[in-house]
Amino acid sequence: MKNAKLLSFAGAVFFFASLAIAQTSPKPRARDLGVPFDGTPGPLNAITDVAGVEVGHSTIVRGEGKLEVGKGPVRTGVTAVLPRGKDNKDLVFAGWFSLNGNGEMTGTTWVDDSGFLEGPVMITNTSSVGVVRDAVLAWQVKRGWSQQPWTLPVVAETWDGHLNDASGFHVKPEHAFEALDSARGGPVVEGSVGGGTGMICNEFKGGIGTASRKVNERAGGYTVGVLVQCNYGLRRLLRIAGAPVGQEIPEEPAYASFNQSREEVGSIIIVVATDAPLLPHQLRRIARRASLGLARNGSIASNGSGDIFIAFSTANPNAAKPDGITPLTMLPNERISAVFEATVQATEEAIINAMVAADTMTGRDNHRVIALPHDRLRAALRKYNRLASD
Amino acid sequence: MKNAKLLSFAGAVFFFASLAIAQTSPKPRARDLGVPFDGTPGPLNAITDVAGVEVGHSTIVRGEGKLEVGKGPVRTGVTAVLPRGKDNKDLVFAGWFSLNGNGEMTGTTWVDDSGFLEGPVMITNTSSVGVVRDAVLAWQVKRGWSQQPWTLPVVAETWDGHLNDASGFHVKPEHAFEALDSARGGPVVEGSVGGGTGMICNEFKGGIGTASRKVNERAGGYTVGVLVQCNYGLRRLLRIAGAPVGQEIPEEPAYASFNQSREEVGSIIIVVATDAPLLPHQLRRIARRASLGLARNGSIASNGSGDIFIAFSTANPNAAKPDGITPLTMLPNERISAVFEATVQATEEAIINAMVAADTMTGRDNHRVIALPHDRLRAALRKYNRLASD
Amino acid sequence: MKNAKLLSFAGAVFFFASLAIAQTSPKPRARDLGVPFDGTPGPLNAITDVAGVEVGHSTIVRGEGKLEVGKGPVRTGVTAVLPRGKDNKDLVFAGWFSLNGNGEMTGTTWVDDSGFLEGPVMITNTSSVGVVRDAVLAWQVKRGWSQQPWTLPVVAETWDGHLNDASGFHVKPEHAFEALDSARGGPVVEGSVGGGTGMICNEFKGGIGTASRKVNERAGGYTVGVLVQCNYGLRRLLRIAGAPVGQEIPEEPAYASFNQSREEVGSIIIVVATDAPLLPHQLRRIARRASLGLARNGSIASNGSGDIFIAFSTANPNAAKPDGITPLTMLPNERISAVFEATVQATEEAIINAMVAADTMTGRDNHRVIALPHDRLRAALRKYNRLASD
Amino acid sequence: MKNAKLLSFAGAVFFFASLAIAQTSPKPRARDLGVPFDGTPGPLNAITDVAGVEVGHSTIVRGEGKLEVGKGPVRTGVTAVLPRGKDNKDLVFAGWFSLNGNGEMTGTTWVDDSGFLEGPVMITNTSSVGVVRDAVLAWQVKRGWSQQPWTLPVVAETWDGHLNDASGFHVKPEHAFEALDSARGGPVVEGSVGGGTGMICNEFKGGIGTASRKVNERAGGYTVGVLVQCNYGLRRLLRIAGAPVGQEIPEEPAYASFNQSREEVGSIIIVVATDAPLLPHQLRRIARRASLGLARNGSIASNGSGDIFIAFSTANPNAAKPDGITPLTMLPNERISAVFEATVQATEEAIINAMVAADTMTGRDNHRVIALPHDRLRAALRKYNRLASD
Repeated sequence: MKNAKLLSFAGAVFFFASLAIAQTSPKPRARDLGVPFDGTPGPLNAITDVAGVEVGHSTIVRGEGKLEVGKGPVRTGVTAVLPRGKDNKDLVFAGWFSLNGNGEMTGTTWVDDSGFLEGPVMITNTSSVGVVRDAVLAWQVKRGWSQQPWTLPVVAETWDGHLNDASGFHVKPEHAFEALDSARGGPVVEGSVGGGTGMICNEFKGGIGTASRKVNERAGGYTVGVLVQCNYGLRRLLRIAGAPVGQEIPEEPAYASFNQSREEVGSIIIVVATDAPLLPHQLRRIARRASLGLARNGSIASNGSGDIFIAFSTANPNAAKPDGITPLTMLPNERISAVFEATVQATEEAIINAMVAADTMTGRDNHRVIALPHDRLRAALRKYNRLASD
Repeated sequence: MKNAKLLSFAGAVFFFASLAIAQTSPKPRARDLGVPFDGTPGPLNAITDVAGVEVGHSTIVRGEGKLEVGKGPVRTGVTAVLPRGKDNKDLVFAGWFSLNGNGEMTGTTWVDDSGFLEGPVMITNTSSVGVVRDAVLAWQVKRGWSQQPWTLPVVAETWDGHLNDASGFHVKPEHAFEALDSARGGPVVEGSVGGGTGMICNEFKGGIGTASRKVNERAGGYTVGVLVQCNYGLRRLLRIAGAPVGQEIPEEPAYASFNQSREEVGSIIIVVATDAPLLPHQLRRIARRASLGLARNGSIASNGSGDIFIAFSTANPNAAKPDGITPLTMLPNERISAVFEATVQATEEAIINAMVAADTMTGRDNHRVIALPHDRLRAALRKYNRLASD
Repeated sequence: MKNAKLLSFAGAVFFFASLAIAQTSPKPRARDLGVPFDGTPGPLNAITDVAGVEVGHSTIVRGEGKLEVGKGPVRTGVTAVLPRGKDNKDLVFAGWFSLNGNGEMTGTTWVDDSGFLEGPVMITNTSSVGVVRDAVLAWQVKRGWSQQPWTLPVVAETWDGHLNDASGFHVKPEHAFEALDSARGGPVVEGSVGGGTGMICNEFKGGIGTASRKVNERAGGYTVGVLVQCNYGLRRLLRIAGAPVGQEIPEEPAYASFNQSREEVGSIIIVVATDAPLLPHQLRRIARRASLGLARNGSIASNGSGDIFIAFSTANPNAAKPDGITPLTMLPNERISAVFEATVQATEEAIINAMVAADTMTGRDNHRVIALPHDRLRAALRKYNRLASD
Repeated sequence: MKNAKLLSFAGAVFFFASLAIAQTSPKPRARDLGVPFDGTPGPLNAITDVAGVEVGHSTIVRGEGKLEVGKGPVRTGVTAVLPRGKDNKDLVFAGWFSLNGNGEMTGTTWVDDSGFLEGPVMITNTSSVGVVRDAVLAWQVKRGWSQQPWTLPVVAETWDGHLNDASGFHVKPEHAFEALDSARGGPVVEGSVGGGTGMICNEFKGGIGTASRKVNERAGGYTVGVLVQCNYGLRRLLRIAGAPVGQEIPEEPAYASFNQSREEVGSIIIVVATDAPLLPHQLRRIARRASLGLARNGSIASNGSGDIFIAFSTANPNAAKPDGITPLTMLPNERISAVFEATVQATEEAIINAMVAADTMTGRDNHRVIALPHDRLRAALRKYNRLASD
């Protein structure tokens, strides 16, 4: 049960579906199923392969049946990514990019101008950006996590209203604290957890996914880790390892009535971490590369999508000290392409990991979203001679 | 206490001091004092001269003396600017600009990509962006103010922690609703009201200010209105109508101990409204011009400043209808400079109006911030032969 | 010979290798070889499917053997894309995007602020951006193609120095005029022509490619056309229709000594045309989507790449008239995703078309760059069950 | 005569009006006339106060009377700013900003992504951006001034067609070389020289101006230098030291017939140099501050203006070495506001210096543009009690 975060709060009695999430036997990940990806992952194949990065989830699952706004059913949560962990307030350099802006990532004007990410990256549902944002500010100010008397938290979202009582505002400050305080290194729980709980990706169940890459020693041996909250896409567009997997599983999704226009809806938030010593303007370039990993899986970044990405570097400790002159190091641009490639590869894999990990979920109004069937995935890859471990 | 808005809630019994805000005798505004400004204002010299625009404030003032976080003293609030008023959900084209990003304006990636401002612009204190953001989303979804099942509210802030218990989180959803529901056309209350309640500008009491300009008939006869929440600046840099007024009033401000570095701190949010038929990319240009009006008053947009501006056009009703092809009109670029000039002028004046309207305030820990003394302002203008009505 | 543009200019005697380029029998294009692409192309499967768009090439090929700077060998040229053809000076709305900025596209600040592309898009080699830029200005001013007494031409480039005497400055104003004056609708010559003459793509011979898509009638029945000048990429990264084609043709390229680092070098310029009535901020979104088509083919947008894209709309004639109020039409954002998808698809195909069309070329210092072998391409697609017409 | 650059080129016999520009007795600068500016200038009050910066001009003045396109009269030139001088190819960090994009600055996408300015900043007339751009590339490649086989020169412009035969294309590569090769430290010739030769500013004669500021020792004692090519503005908007000087000199300018609309036309290019160790994202912030200095002088950045600014730092030598890890230093954001203030102040002064230095000029078709009359300037400042040395 160690990866499952149990949440308890304020006089409520919850049905912890997170029990179901707990991995009694290790779940297969995409490459365990034979999906061929390029590049060399780190030991965990997770964003936490970047030393210091911690991830925490608060998962809220309760109720069943017909939607009563304010009561549920609830299928939502919060995910926290802490660049240097929850006990280290030292800032990190960062950059961000909006591929399609139908979403929210707060705090970005200050990332642009300061060059720093001044705290965690939080991901939740669309209606809960505000509560999480203020909660992070309170959490940071209380801990003295700011050189200014205020902070400008970075909080992003995707929309879970097909499965969740989104207008019920079930995320409370306590959930943000829970995600922050439970953050840790090591393996990252994927699928329907944290902010990803109620998400849908390529018309399969989506959620949180992660992956990592080591660049080779000539390029510095750095690590790139990616974490996604994956809620975008149309099945017919889904490519996996280049194969048109989505078109091989054409059965009508259960929520067809919702997505009547058959247009891509939903969003994806991508967080890229690295220990390569990159400056803010270089990290903007990294964030932009997340687009390319996403595109490999077929996305067109539709109008309804909030595809917003942020990248940070854990190198250059103490870069934000406010006095004197700050010594730094920088990876030359001439050596950065390997980090670009690692970003593209890890993004491509993290998205598939999210879908592979997520289980079929039934939510509000008995909306049911099926998981990507592992056998069908393997069959499709085999058809296109792309099954690695066959 | 006549300008102080006493609000008490939790169990929700409000004392609506808004009655007290009503100006029993008209306060002088900057041009009443003889400050010479270029251009021709509209009838109200306010953002509400742009037909349809409504402004509402929720002002929270309670307690005195020593700061107890969570108890007060409280000097804060929320201001709402509704482009087409609180009863019209039709969207407006918009564009935005960050002159210095040490602040927050949510919702901007979607303004960039959609071209629309999908609801009100809200302004509050730094710690309350989240609560106001979620409250606006709830208010909009409830009223069907969105073509999507979600909204991406635009909420901005400046920091009032020198006078206010900023970490006490005294702004509640009700205050956002109050600002929205009380919005109206007509004269706009200026000074220490709404989001501007606890603000400091050029080391005088700051807050909300507004102004407007009519462009000439050759240029279309359009109106430009500006509203600012003014919390930036160092006194020694303050120019009014070009005269170095700040240097003429050099007395040490009461809060010198706070601002030890003598560096400019604080922020300014600027909202520009117009009825000129401008497209989103043209409105980005308008937002950028707010910088130039601000600069006329001496600002250097210091590192500590969140100087973030948004501009919208009330022309082109129904531009956001989701089907068919949308007929629009556009002001040619060749005719836009007059709107630029009006924006610069109205911004310049709105800031001075904010300082002229604000009364001396004593807040937390008995911090006292003096109002810009009207007599000293007039004396300084006279010294530089810039007093209009002498 | 009608598609091959023979160049003659001012007293020079050239060896017109363009003769070799002339298509005596129609060359196969990518889909003729069985590459499966999604979507429905227009009649020409070319950017010229967008009514009014004209394309002209000026191809300069002369000399062989050892490089003598200033003498040759020369393998370069200029390509012109005229949104409304060479006899119509009416402007078009436009937007642009830089995926990776190691390149040049002039004129972009005015595209941003005016919303208009005020003339043709020109593509040439890196050393010749200036001469082409001034030549276009002269060509436009002479023809009265500007509302201002000046113009701000849009000229982009990729680097052809592996095959061409790039520092010899062989492109002259006459070549720019030739490209402009020879522009026409109808089929577009692809491969080693015009600006694309000396280009290398994914370590095969690259150059000019084009493709188009029709969106369905529900989405308006609009056409999207793409033209690329393709000079980017590493062979090992090349995917075609999702299949890892590059890895199936691993033979060392002839120019390995040049690209020792095995890092992706080179660039791609992408021009997107549409007749959908899109505003400038919407066209920025279109330009950004070109990234996603590029990524489908495996690009990581390496540090050495100038990946700069521009999109324009031929709808809204007379949008730039300088007086009065301009009536316009706009495709609602809710209908734009189909145009996004068409852009991604047409970009994906145009790149492959460029490689399929280009013949093996020997240039300066006998550098030889092989064409993508059609049989090997088909074999690779067959291996991955992706050959459409097998 | 050492500051006057005599140009000779290719078999031509020129009438060198630059003789008239040579300063036989030192010309007064703005502060010599009693214009009060804030802050402390460096020893030269010029961009060359930043150690290493060199400036060169190539001035082309020949012919009189009626315009014959291609023959003259010619009133134009080229100005080169070399961040580390003409004998040092080491790159500098840089950032840029477009306040209004009706102009050109080439090379900016690579400044954005690389963080570096890879050579000089060149300023010329609108029609000559291309020839200068290619000439710089040739000059750099020849000298091995590039880590890549190409360069992406930064060339900017303003339009001089009211005085100059702008469509005659009189700037040749030799003029660019002349500006580069004649660059030196020390005093900078101002007014109608180099790229500024034919420029008009606030309806007076404009051109090149410069100024500098030292920040105090607490802020690091750094130097900020600014050079402008000043060609913008309407006289009625001109403020000098805050005083409405333009309105005090209302006489109809000689070229009223040209500027019939009385709208601000023209442009300004601003180059900011500093030895403060700023990173690229910080230099973008510096470039943005040039707007604020410009605004103090009354600009509204009209539609016709190309107001494009670039800032670079001479700190961090060898930052661009392509291998290993690069050690750097950074000025903390908390200390940057003093550099912002210096930038605003030096920009404000450099513009006035340009106008004060420029002499009345008669150009094509006997168009005559008067210099800012020094006595009238002093009278206006005296009227507003702003004359420093009275």
